[in-house]
Amino acid sequence: MFKGADVKGDGVTSSQRVLALCGGVGGAKLALGLSHVIDDEKLTIVVNTGDDFDHLGLRICPDIDTVTYTLAGIVNPETGWGRAGETGSFMDALSMLGGEDWFYLGDKDLALHVERTRRLAEGESLSGITAGIAQQLDIGPRILPMSDDPVATMVETTSGTLAFQHYFVRERCQPPVTGFYFDGIEAAKPHSDLLGILADSCLDAVIVCPSNPFVSIDPILSLPGVRQALRDCSAPVIAVSPIVGGKAVKGPTVKMMAELDLAPTSVEVLKRYQDILNGFVLDKRDINDLEQLKTMVDYVEITDTLMLSLDHKIALARAVVDFARRC
Amino acid sequence: MFKGADVKGDGVTSSQRVLALCGGVGGAKLALGLSHVIDDEKLTIVVNTGDDFDHLGLRICPDIDTVTYTLAGIVNPETGWGRAGETGSFMDALSMLGGEDWFYLGDKDLALHVERTRRLAEGESLSGITAGIAQQLDIGPRILPMSDDPVATMVETTSGTLAFQHYFVRERCQPPVTGFYFDGIEAAKPHSDLLGILADSCLDAVIVCPSNPFVSIDPILSLPGVRQALRDCSAPVIAVSPIVGGKAVKGPTVKMMAELDLAPTSVEVLKRYQDILNGFVLDKRDINDLEQLKTMVDYVEITDTLMLSLDHKIALARAVVDFARRC
Repeated sequence: MFKGADVKGDGVTSSQRVLALCGGVGGAKLALGLSHVIDDEKLTIVVNTGDDFDHLGLRICPDIDTVTYTLAGIVNPETGWGRAGETGSFMDALSMLGGEDWFYLGDKDLALHVERTRRLAEGESLSGITAGIAQQLDIGPRILPMSDDPVATMVETTSGTLAFQHYFVRERCQPPVTGFYFDGIEAAKPHSDLLGILADSCLDAVIVCPSNPFVSIDPILSLPGVRQALRDCSAPVIAVSPIVGGKAVKGPTVKMMAELDLAPTSVEVLKRYQDILNGFVLDKRDINDLEQLKTMVDYVEITDTLMLSLDHKIALARAVVDFARRC
Repeated sequence: MFKGADVKGDGVTSSQRVLALCGGVGGAKLALGLSHVIDDEKLTIVVNTGDDFDHLGLRICPDIDTVTYTLAGIVNPETGWGRAGETGSFMDALSMLGGEDWFYLGDKDLALHVERTRRLAEGESLSGITAGIAQQLDIGPRILPMSDDPVATMVETTSGTLAFQHYFVRERCQPPVTGFYFDGIEAAKPHSDLLGILADSCLDAVIVCPSNPFVSIDPILSLPGVRQALRDCSAPVIAVSPIVGGKAVKGPTVKMMAELDLAPTSVEVLKRYQDILNGFVLDKRDINDLEQLKTMVDYVEITDTLMLSLDHKIALARAVVDFARRC
């Protein structure tokens, strides 16, 4: 299905055109791997904005920022989000003033929120600002917010409905989840370039990154027209399972699955994407799922999906784009 | 003229009711001295807001912040403004993102601007926010913005008209000054408590702090009704000269005077306040001005006005309130 493109040898990028869909930490890791494997101008990373929220008068876009910091090589390697070598003077001073301090904002990180908020207030689009910041940080691939319109992921829990960051950060994912919805999704337009790239016959692969299916990927898929565009897309659509050995590498995916009475398996993840997928990448630790997965999707690839080092990230990215060629 | 109040011995505060008018660094020093001399609940410090501006989407109030940090004991002792032990991660990161970095905002200082901007956006008044912050920082005396309405000091220069912070910080006071005006002053209401205190027969003294007469004190005096209220006020109005030995201790006062063809003397400062003053405090280094000053105002006090230490600040404050009793 690839049009004259070749995955080249180690250290050489490919001329495949790739669209990746991702959320925060896990997705950003694969996006970083992809950035080493795919030519800059041929890689577009579409990022969930359902986590975005207004806090202290600032517009905060956690997933875009995680992808941006990761691709710029300035992400905090300990956490996978925020900036390396961060300082906390602002938060200390805010606490001293009696301000709202449940959401940690490092001093360096704050510059991005202040700059973005200022530019949004001046009428720039989120996608334009994101591109400008990426250029300033010498990021090659395109980071594309799923939409320039606000969408807010809401988490329905046994303690009531919570805005995502209130659930995720303030309540530390403690309240048992009963469901999700995306406030504003009906009125939100997917970014026109997202639909344009999906409709482009030159596209070689769509990669659904190993992000949380409920709160990272579902908001993107729920934008009007996106699911259909993925079904209609001429390029293979590949998902990388976020489940490794029956667990989530990071974040509440498996906790959510348990609370929603879903088994913590790749099978359950694949079910959410089954209508759009041509191929599925399974972690080698979950090989027990293989037979059932084979009945659900045309192609299954088994590999090590745990991205502990940059080499791992690049190796997984290479395996995924190579797999896409065979789908 | 004082109603039963006595300036008590060293280390004991007075029950005089005092209203101080001030700008930034110099005024804040005397305000700190006054806070050691006057009972907390009897001291109100009215602060210039003409320097306030919107920057990076944040509302910044330099004079209020300088007074707040000074009275809270957290001001940077080297500069007289900003916070002690400040860090600069935000500014470094903002520069990295290509943001506007000509106005330095320390990481700790930023917390105040973010918190104030958030609360203004929620509809709180500047005076309410200022009071809340002061309470949070255990500041005893009242810090009162001259107005809750925006007023913007504009500096007319030979290179055109500049907003105050652009003149003061970005252009480092280089363009020669030809005049000033206060944008929004006609529509701005002086804070009702400012007029209320001036009309109160229990007030014992008004002290015009040694601040820049053009850009710190004039905006307060130019608010509709304030000059007349000072003339009508039953308490003595005392100004402390910002000129020490023919120079300004800090800031562009003397540079501005030269550019406006005014001699750098206390006489020229007094001329600006002559209609409202009962007494004038002259620095001992400018004793040559004494005879002329005596022809212009009822009472003149000569003392050391240079406030190099906390003891100096307290001594000057005590000398000023003592002088006010004799006016």
